[in-house]
Amino acid sequence: MTTTATTLKGQPLDRQTLDAMLRRRLFFTPAFEIYGGVAGLFDYGPPGCALQANIVETWRKHFILEEDMLEIDTTVLTPHEVLKTSGHVDKFADWMCKDPKNGDILRADHFVEDVLEARLKGDKEARGQKVEEEDDPKKKKKRKTKAEAVKLEDAVVQEYEEILAKIDNYNGEELGELIKKYDLRNPNTGLQPSPPVAFNLMFQTAIGPSSNLPGYLRPETAQGQFLNFAKLLDFNMQQMPFASASIGKSYRNEISPRAGLLRVREFLMAEIEHFVDPEGGKKHVRFPEVNTVELTLLDRHTQLAGKTEVKKMTIGDAVSNKVVDNETLGYFLARIHLFLQKIGVDMTKVRFRQHMENEMAHYAADCWDAELLTSSGWIECVGCADRSAYDLSVHAKKTGAPLVVRERLDEPLIFEEWQVEIDKKKFGPQFKKDGKTVEAALEGTTQEQREKLAKQLTDNGELELEVAGVSSGTVKVSKDLVKIEFRKRVENTREFTPNVIEPSFGIGRILYSLIEHVYWNRATEDGAGDEARGVLSFPPTVAPTKVLIVPLSANKQFQPFVSKISQKLRKYGISARVDSSSATIGKRYSRNDELGTPLGITIDFQTVQDSTITLRDRDSTKQVRADEDTIIAAIQSLVTGAKEWKDVAAELPTFESQEVDVTVR
Amino acid sequence: MTTTATTLKGQPLDRQTLDAMLRRRLFFTPAFEIYGGVAGLFDYGPPGCALQANIVETWRKHFILEEDMLEIDTTVLTPHEVLKTSGHVDKFADWMCKDPKNGDILRADHFVEDVLEARLKGDKEARGQKVEEEDDPKKKKKRKTKAEAVKLEDAVVQEYEEILAKIDNYNGEELGELIKKYDLRNPNTGLQPSPPVAFNLMFQTAIGPSSNLPGYLRPETAQGQFLNFAKLLDFNMQQMPFASASIGKSYRNEISPRAGLLRVREFLMAEIEHFVDPEGGKKHVRFPEVNTVELTLLDRHTQLAGKTEVKKMTIGDAVSNKVVDNETLGYFLARIHLFLQKIGVDMTKVRFRQHMENEMAHYAADCWDAELLTSSGWIECVGCADRSAYDLSVHAKKTGAPLVVRERLDEPLIFEEWQVEIDKKKFGPQFKKDGKTVEAALEGTTQEQREKLAKQLTDNGELELEVAGVSSGTVKVSKDLVKIEFRKRVENTREFTPNVIEPSFGIGRILYSLIEHVYWNRATEDGAGDEARGVLSFPPTVAPTKVLIVPLSANKQFQPFVSKISQKLRKYGISARVDSSSATIGKRYSRNDELGTPLGITIDFQTVQDSTITLRDRDSTKQVRADEDTIIAAIQSLVTGAKEWKDVAAELPTFESQEVDVTVR
Repeated sequence: MTTTATTLKGQPLDRQTLDAMLRRRLFFTPAFEIYGGVAGLFDYGPPGCALQANIVETWRKHFILEEDMLEIDTTVLTPHEVLKTSGHVDKFADWMCKDPKNGDILRADHFVEDVLEARLKGDKEARGQKVEEEDDPKKKKKRKTKAEAVKLEDAVVQEYEEILAKIDNYNGEELGELIKKYDLRNPNTGLQPSPPVAFNLMFQTAIGPSSNLPGYLRPETAQGQFLNFAKLLDFNMQQMPFASASIGKSYRNEISPRAGLLRVREFLMAEIEHFVDPEGGKKHVRFPEVNTVELTLLDRHTQLAGKTEVKKMTIGDAVSNKVVDNETLGYFLARIHLFLQKIGVDMTKVRFRQHMENEMAHYAADCWDAELLTSSGWIECVGCADRSAYDLSVHAKKTGAPLVVRERLDEPLIFEEWQVEIDKKKFGPQFKKDGKTVEAALEGTTQEQREKLAKQLTDNGELELEVAGVSSGTVKVSKDLVKIEFRKRVENTREFTPNVIEPSFGIGRILYSLIEHVYWNRATEDGAGDEARGVLSFPPTVAPTKVLIVPLSANKQFQPFVSKISQKLRKYGISARVDSSSATIGKRYSRNDELGTPLGITIDFQTVQDSTITLRDRDSTKQVRADEDTIIAAIQSLVTGAKEWKDVAAELPTFESQEVDVTVR
Repeated sequence: MTTTATTLKGQPLDRQTLDAMLRRRLFFTPAFEIYGGVAGLFDYGPPGCALQANIVETWRKHFILEEDMLEIDTTVLTPHEVLKTSGHVDKFADWMCKDPKNGDILRADHFVEDVLEARLKGDKEARGQKVEEEDDPKKKKKRKTKAEAVKLEDAVVQEYEEILAKIDNYNGEELGELIKKYDLRNPNTGLQPSPPVAFNLMFQTAIGPSSNLPGYLRPETAQGQFLNFAKLLDFNMQQMPFASASIGKSYRNEISPRAGLLRVREFLMAEIEHFVDPEGGKKHVRFPEVNTVELTLLDRHTQLAGKTEVKKMTIGDAVSNKVVDNETLGYFLARIHLFLQKIGVDMTKVRFRQHMENEMAHYAADCWDAELLTSSGWIECVGCADRSAYDLSVHAKKTGAPLVVRERLDEPLIFEEWQVEIDKKKFGPQFKKDGKTVEAALEGTTQEQREKLAKQLTDNGELELEVAGVSSGTVKVSKDLVKIEFRKRVENTREFTPNVIEPSFGIGRILYSLIEHVYWNRATEDGAGDEARGVLSFPPTVAPTKVLIVPLSANKQFQPFVSKISQKLRKYGISARVDSSSATIGKRYSRNDELGTPLGITIDFQTVQDSTITLRDRDSTKQVRADEDTIIAAIQSLVTGAKEWKDVAAELPTFESQEVDVTVR
């Protein structure tokens, strides 16, 4: 699964240089750093915060507005009972091992993966093969287990590779067996850790002053949506299918988070719950619109065979070949693909991986993850699960709330069947405390049983029934207490519990992976020097800041133009930043290349004369020159995605005389 | 402080009718309602969620974009140590009493208020006076203490009123004294509750698998901003003043939340931390822009005198008269006023109330609340505190991080002073483990002490110094280890800890108060009938949905027009909803009056002929008719706030023939 990470331009990705740049530009930073930090908690600085907001805004337009989804905002604090019912209290856990000597806490699957990968690496070294991720500091840091150059037998190498291909499919017991079988040891102590035990990943707290109401921070936004299902259906005037959506923080108390933004304890999620009739094959009315979208798929069977080869196919084919179960699931996979493309993800670094049986969350009937390739390997960024009727059913059963759809039938359904009719007034006095039990037993009889019991009533004037829970074991019921008759029943409405297709987005993981995908190095690229000059080529729609405004120098003549242009851009809602520092224009542009600002306006002496300004494209460093309003109109069309730079460059006159300044550092 | 609540049109506000409407339209709903709900937790349904998003977006433009604030997104989970240092672990508490018999938990200040208000009401009844809030179901429900018609002495009435005017100024001990002095009893048991004890309002949890890192859910977003101060100053290229801002959830474990959205345990905050040089009177460069804004002020002195009379004055006068301490604080009070106006708050129901000494949070040097009048009385919706250098100082002291600004001085400062110079190489060997202690003691001496010690060195060749922490109590230091001389020192930079002005917005409280302010009843207003027809007159900028699209009937001919107009509006980012239900147009418009949708488009048979459509104004129910593009352009100008309805009505031809339909229900 490991692959050498590359930049947008195919250069080897130097993770340390990138990390240093992201820290320097305050995209994000460890939270509470002056207090030593807390693992798995990060703050977003201004560019990271703006990037996050723009990704979320694009998401909202792409999904919520496009399909009139019902966006709601539900609470993070969740009482125990809700998450007990949903299964999270019992099953939302990772497997955790402890070192018997120093108490190191290890996440079992990561530990197994770590040691086996180290052994494979040692084997490659011993065989004199190139070790791919040698230069990847992230991997080095992550791998606590030092690779020793020890050659393995070919069969062992294959075994390890197969285990790694399906590492997500092992449960705690199986992970424990792997640890014993292959004698996997904690590199810090040289000892085998204890057998894996389940560690629940929810943060616990108490609600109210008397501490009598235990609660959790939600691990997903989904439950809040399910609990409001009946109200949402009402709001939607009973129309099906429909989707709700929520954007908000969720929490997972990760065992030992180490992968920066990719594994954190507090994170922003954007989740859709699409409610669909389970009958009729879960068709989707807009499926034809995405029919021909080609996806890269890694299905369950391939992985269980210990392989990782992907298949490319259109979602239309994938659904008709049953690789993807149904149209609604397929529709959302395609829509996820289009969303990732829209925000600038490198689509050669995306695959959709199907979950294996044991890997799936307790509520899921099927699940595909959109995974993005990064320097930390393939990262699950979007999950798209078919939760079937699981959640609505368990909450309805627990609370008695009717979380169902009632649909008027065009043609009534007619049933002919044996029906039981109990005379409840007489029933109580006769059976006393056993009354309810006997009633339930009678109503629980099958059609066949009823036919026989009806005959007993006709023949003997009473029936005899085995009833567990009644001391005598059987009871007799006479015909004045119960009737059993073959009758016709007409149903005008159909009642069903909708199934749920859930596309669930981890915004932070998408944000970080996107950064790696759009990152490249200008110095290496144009051969202009050996100095690293990082560029983040965000599409204008998601870039944190759209425009940098630079006056050529501190000359006071430029100031009125700076103010006027800033105000105009602000009026159009286009975020801009002025850099009036004394650095050269080239340096100021370099700084903003690192911030991913796609456009730059320069105000120079010609501006003072004729009010024209130049517009620079971050990626090509090409410039055009025109009057203020023409440039602002061009910016608007670039920022909304209506035009690309090549359109603007073709329309407006090229400007070149600042080039010298731009390359000087 | 109680006042009869009124609607936008001055009608008596019927809280029960409003609540029913808000529930019916799913603005918000008790969270986990099918599980019985949890006090103080609410979910926002689609219209509430959109309204919240629009208020936040307006806030972001009004504050963050307008002043280039640095928006950041920090974590909710906060380790113990941070909130211990900030003072929240020790001081962020409310006073709580317990009933000795049934264990009722009461918030002490609310309990005192409740009983005294009931007695005053009983007194009014006994005197045969009109009891103002008689019809207010909210008040009735809140008051657990039943008012009995008992006349009080005039002096007692005055005492009670004075206590109520400054109820927020009592500490726990004082509240306990009031309970004893006036024999205040829990209406449920007839007993005096126990003396008030402090109850910390933070939700506690444990971070990580070993439970060894206690943490809290943040009670405010501010701490995350303070901890990042040094990085933000860097990002801002060392320029002062500047502001950071955060929008995010915060948590307070309220003792017994009962007031709907006005007192909740999980809430959205929008907070600004404006960092300013404490020297030079905290001037603000943009103060002249708001100079003439007139505010309604209730200052500290008035309240301490037991009164609630407000004063109206411009913020310019308030600052020059020292009613408001400084320009920066004044600037933000005015900006808050303008923001509230922009989102549609009824400015006759706004006042700025200054905190009394004991009422202020432990970190505040001064604080003014923007309070909005609702059916629950005056509600604190925005706090604007001067936190001085409190937070940055305590965190810097605890962690050693330099949370300071270093400013190059235009003219260097020259000091003539006694300076200590220690020969550290010799110092260590001489004093061994006491070395550092003695060094610190020498460097901690005052100018006067140094003058004396210098004399000792000259006279005796050694000095003698008392040093706490050294076993001998005093040490002798010879002149080859230390020099003390009178010298000139030049400082080119000045180092200071900025002060913080913090405008802090409770979005949920603003949202609810706004709803009450824009609510009115059309039926009562136009005398058309006795049926309640609620309208929410949100300004188009914050309205949850901007446009309702209604085809005249289910006729298929209308469908292409509906689709085309929906698509166009979506393209312009204008949220619209189609209602193709079979209800009359009037009924469909009424439904959307309740949702606060400001504009309605009708597609009728004339549309099919000439492509013209009608546009309806929610508040006046007037309509205009024009071609599609003209109407859409009009909508855009209304939604961005560029035009008002009267402008549009003057420009486009009036349309009247659907009027019959509109009033028919």
